[in-house]
Amino acid sequence: MSSNDLTRRLADELHRLPLIDPHSHINPHAAASTTLADLLGYHYYTELAHSAGLPKSQIEEPGLDPKEKVHRLVGKLADLENTIQYSWLIEMCQVFFGFQDDRLTLANWESLYDTAAKKMAQPDWEEQVLKTSRLEQVFLTNDFDDPLTGFDTNRYIPCLRTDDLVFHLAKPETQQRLAKATGIAVSNAQTLVAALGKLFQHFTAHGCRACAISLPPSFAPEPVSANDVEAPLHAALTGKPLSACEATTLSNFVFWNLAQYCVEFKLPFDLMIGVNRRVYADGVYQGQDLFDQRCSLIQYQKLLNAFPQVTFPISVLANSSNHELVSYAWIFPNVVTNGHWWYSNIPAYIENDCRSRLQAVPQTKQIGYYSDMYKLEFGLPKFTMYRRVLAKVLADDFVIARGWSEERALELGRLTLRGNVQRIFGM
Amino acid sequence: MSSNDLTRRLADELHRLPLIDPHSHINPHAAASTTLADLLGYHYYTELAHSAGLPKSQIEEPGLDPKEKVHRLVGKLADLENTIQYSWLIEMCQVFFGFQDDRLTLANWESLYDTAAKKMAQPDWEEQVLKTSRLEQVFLTNDFDDPLTGFDTNRYIPCLRTDDLVFHLAKPETQQRLAKATGIAVSNAQTLVAALGKLFQHFTAHGCRACAISLPPSFAPEPVSANDVEAPLHAALTGKPLSACEATTLSNFVFWNLAQYCVEFKLPFDLMIGVNRRVYADGVYQGQDLFDQRCSLIQYQKLLNAFPQVTFPISVLANSSNHELVSYAWIFPNVVTNGHWWYSNIPAYIENDCRSRLQAVPQTKQIGYYSDMYKLEFGLPKFTMYRRVLAKVLADDFVIARGWSEERALELGRLTLRGNVQRIFGM
Amino acid sequence: MSSNDLTRRLADELHRLPLIDPHSHINPHAAASTTLADLLGYHYYTELAHSAGLPKSQIEEPGLDPKEKVHRLVGKLADLENTIQYSWLIEMCQVFFGFQDDRLTLANWESLYDTAAKKMAQPDWEEQVLKTSRLEQVFLTNDFDDPLTGFDTNRYIPCLRTDDLVFHLAKPETQQRLAKATGIAVSNAQTLVAALGKLFQHFTAHGCRACAISLPPSFAPEPVSANDVEAPLHAALTGKPLSACEATTLSNFVFWNLAQYCVEFKLPFDLMIGVNRRVYADGVYQGQDLFDQRCSLIQYQKLLNAFPQVTFPISVLANSSNHELVSYAWIFPNVVTNGHWWYSNIPAYIENDCRSRLQAVPQTKQIGYYSDMYKLEFGLPKFTMYRRVLAKVLADDFVIARGWSEERALELGRLTLRGNVQRIFGM
Repeated sequence: MSSNDLTRRLADELHRLPLIDPHSHINPHAAASTTLADLLGYHYYTELAHSAGLPKSQIEEPGLDPKEKVHRLVGKLADLENTIQYSWLIEMCQVFFGFQDDRLTLANWESLYDTAAKKMAQPDWEEQVLKTSRLEQVFLTNDFDDPLTGFDTNRYIPCLRTDDLVFHLAKPETQQRLAKATGIAVSNAQTLVAALGKLFQHFTAHGCRACAISLPPSFAPEPVSANDVEAPLHAALTGKPLSACEATTLSNFVFWNLAQYCVEFKLPFDLMIGVNRRVYADGVYQGQDLFDQRCSLIQYQKLLNAFPQVTFPISVLANSSNHELVSYAWIFPNVVTNGHWWYSNIPAYIENDCRSRLQAVPQTKQIGYYSDMYKLEFGLPKFTMYRRVLAKVLADDFVIARGWSEERALELGRLTLRGNVQRIFGM
Repeated sequence: MSSNDLTRRLADELHRLPLIDPHSHINPHAAASTTLADLLGYHYYTELAHSAGLPKSQIEEPGLDPKEKVHRLVGKLADLENTIQYSWLIEMCQVFFGFQDDRLTLANWESLYDTAAKKMAQPDWEEQVLKTSRLEQVFLTNDFDDPLTGFDTNRYIPCLRTDDLVFHLAKPETQQRLAKATGIAVSNAQTLVAALGKLFQHFTAHGCRACAISLPPSFAPEPVSANDVEAPLHAALTGKPLSACEATTLSNFVFWNLAQYCVEFKLPFDLMIGVNRRVYADGVYQGQDLFDQRCSLIQYQKLLNAFPQVTFPISVLANSSNHELVSYAWIFPNVVTNGHWWYSNIPAYIENDCRSRLQAVPQTKQIGYYSDMYKLEFGLPKFTMYRRVLAKVLADDFVIARGWSEERALELGRLTLRGNVQRIFGM
Repeated sequence: MSSNDLTRRLADELHRLPLIDPHSHINPHAAASTTLADLLGYHYYTELAHSAGLPKSQIEEPGLDPKEKVHRLVGKLADLENTIQYSWLIEMCQVFFGFQDDRLTLANWESLYDTAAKKMAQPDWEEQVLKTSRLEQVFLTNDFDDPLTGFDTNRYIPCLRTDDLVFHLAKPETQQRLAKATGIAVSNAQTLVAALGKLFQHFTAHGCRACAISLPPSFAPEPVSANDVEAPLHAALTGKPLSACEATTLSNFVFWNLAQYCVEFKLPFDLMIGVNRRVYADGVYQGQDLFDQRCSLIQYQKLLNAFPQVTFPISVLANSSNHELVSYAWIFPNVVTNGHWWYSNIPAYIENDCRSRLQAVPQTKQIGYYSDMYKLEFGLPKFTMYRRVLAKVLADDFVIARGWSEERALELGRLTLRGNVQRIFGM
């Protein structure tokens, strides 16, 4: 039995499974793309093209025409042909637009652009993409003041993203948005907690299935009493600058109360751990963030012990954090491994991470993959990349090494791809 | 030549080698199991079942009948079928009890339970297990006040475990145990050192082959003068609370003196580096510990330089520490790589760790594997798991990549599996 | 298609490519070896033999005859036969001296020694080695006061190594060397900056293509004003001891000005990040350094943002740092991945690192490999080791997984092996 053939067969079978994508940045009012610029505008292409030498000013010129933007990016794509992200692009072009080549160049891009624009203009384009990609439901990343109206919340599942509340509450803009969204003028700890509660009410009333946040490597949540937060909160509300220590106190207070509400509203709390924002300040939009690998899940010890009733699907950014994630999910009932995030979302890292999780974490506690996509077309190549790696691990570690039947291995694959998403998020 | 066939052939050959297990938690007075509850009671199963949702109260109910305990755990096993630990269980049941299925379920567990109980009740069960597993000698983990009598110390090799002395000397219970074991009432640094010496005399007189300790990620040993330890020691002896700094001083003093005695008594000092205790305080018994990957062997620089005469077989808990371990064993004559510990003891991590060690550390400085087992039956599946990985690395990296003969590759395998254990521990 | 056959075919093709070695420690006045002692005297063999038990006094005995030195080292080689470094040795002996065995032992070493000595005495030995190894150009590591004369700077490319300036300027010897090399008596910040400028003039006038430095894990460069450095500099110049903080200020000042000169003189600045010097103080020559994995590229955030015009080819010592390197090269236009350094230079680590870089970093921003060699003969086996790993990754990830043609995969391989070196260092 050839390992390659077996892997291909398992991947083909997994491809037939309808998917629920448990994390994306889809705008439900404009889920699919309208031109190739929506695809090539994804930060993976702009940041890689910029990294390879394309000036930011060329990419982010104000008023730049979408077609010209694609033209400029295509001119730099040769430098990125090796990347896995480039392979996503070619796969999308081939599957969705009948593209015949395996390279996108200055010689062939324009006809592709026009073909794509026509296809994307079809009124059922969004439906076509979902169907071709076998995507049934897609989780969103909603601002806390999103009205959550005007779209099908059964297809596009609301998710309460809370970075602004935890890390930017001192900004007047955040305070104003919170007041407007909740009708509560926050003036102290008590009204802040009340306002947060309003958000949970609003979101769960609209089918929200998760609370979510991304966290810097230094974050180490602690409980903070209402009494202790009053001074920093007062400073924040009156526009006074907060010391690093005060800012941390305020962040901790909000974060801990979010976890509290996750108990009350029975929501999983997605933790995406390890990102440093704006490390490369002159980078392109969304291409500025990096990380510091010196981060440990021990920083979450108090949180995980304090909230046994809350499920924490955890993503880690640094590859070296995966061993801790495997081990914490192995021990803590409320820790679930969640996908392969951002800089760890390439086959070289997915394979080792997927392998270690499948060997050591209960199979019911693993969310295999999410797309993290901004435009619907990316679901297909991203899940395909993951399914290939998953199929390889199932082939090597379960069918070949442990003598499992292919069907039994596929059951495990389906559970991590879909079954666990359904159960953990209570769909 | 198929890599899979070659691997299987090498694994089969390695399987014929009689083993010395250089680290276990076997109770020599009850080495083998008496019911399936002894197997399923291993913390890997209780903690994974608990992690998958089985309440601790169900597992640790006072007075729980062994059969009922197995019943409850089997009811949760479906969630763990993917884990490598589950595969150990099935392999034990198949090899030792003729179990025919590949899943242990509520439908088939009871007859297995009864079959196992009968087998385990045979007077020579312990001998049967040792023989089937090709285990010749097994190292123990003895409390410092273990009398070391009533068992064959040539089969079960005593090993002086020193965690209590280094980290819990401030507890009255530890002081009382030390006084009782040595006949010395510790009152100052001098009598403390004398008491430690008594322990080494006692242990080496009973065939002890190693001193051992597990250490938290923050530990960084330093020499402490007798003068500097008097105050913290006095506090400890009189029941006064120690500051963190005083506790560290006391730990360092004891630890450094243990290393000193290892020189005098010519004992290797097993360091098991990186565990944080009771991270998940509500976890099941032995299922509460985790780690912080932010740990470096540079913390042991002073120790390794100060004791060139002592061999330090080092185990690391975090997978990311393996590269340091490889490099420190490559440079320091007194550092030896030791097995694959706990959260790193799954094939995904063993394979990379084994590969890097075999490529860069002198072959005479590698202890391939230890079982860490509590019951004798686990030696078989654990060593089998390791031998498969070792055989794969020997096949890929030595026979295929370097053109070694199979016999030459097997010699290397036998050295890390057994030869080095024999030489390093002076058997 | 067998993956092993494909890998071999690709490796053979890559072997035909003439090489530019972008980092070595070759002495251009004595580039090739004169006896086997030059090969076995490489720190990999002396430190591994010492690690395996050969006393330092045996290896570094004053006045030791080269032949006797080889004799002693050969006597310990059996312990190292598993290491990849041993395989380099055997490959050199087979290719360069027609050695027929696959082990170097006390039974066969002497005739090899004599054969090698004869071959090495041939007047064109250096040319033979370069030709057999397909080495066209080799970068050097020059002391800042190297006259750079008496050798062909088109074959042996000068490179300004700056460790002494950044970390040892407080030593009178460094100050005297600097004064002699530049004709400038440093007395304050301004004259120090001027002296550094003189070095850049001298080096670039002699064809220097890079500035380079190795850095400890704790280093985190910051700009320092001329004003702020005056006090520490004055202390250094007058032989007063510097506090840790003052030493850091001085190091930062020099380092930042080196980067400034890299702008002016259009030189890439090679950063080799992560080495702790003299960790094992009693180790053999060059066998004393190790590392602390707790290091992050976030420490270089300010530098990378401040010098967008400077290309930084970055090497990392700890394997766990590779994910950060991949990610920083993916985002920062001025970060280039550079080779596989020292303790990471073994196939087990090269394979994962090479794989992740090829999947996520623009192909134009990757310098595949450098030899780091001290003697010319090592270029062959080291590059061969790398080419095999590279060929495997190209076979598995590109030809098999992505359906690339072999020729397309080879183009990618040639770019990382040679094309990028040429372009990045402006050859």
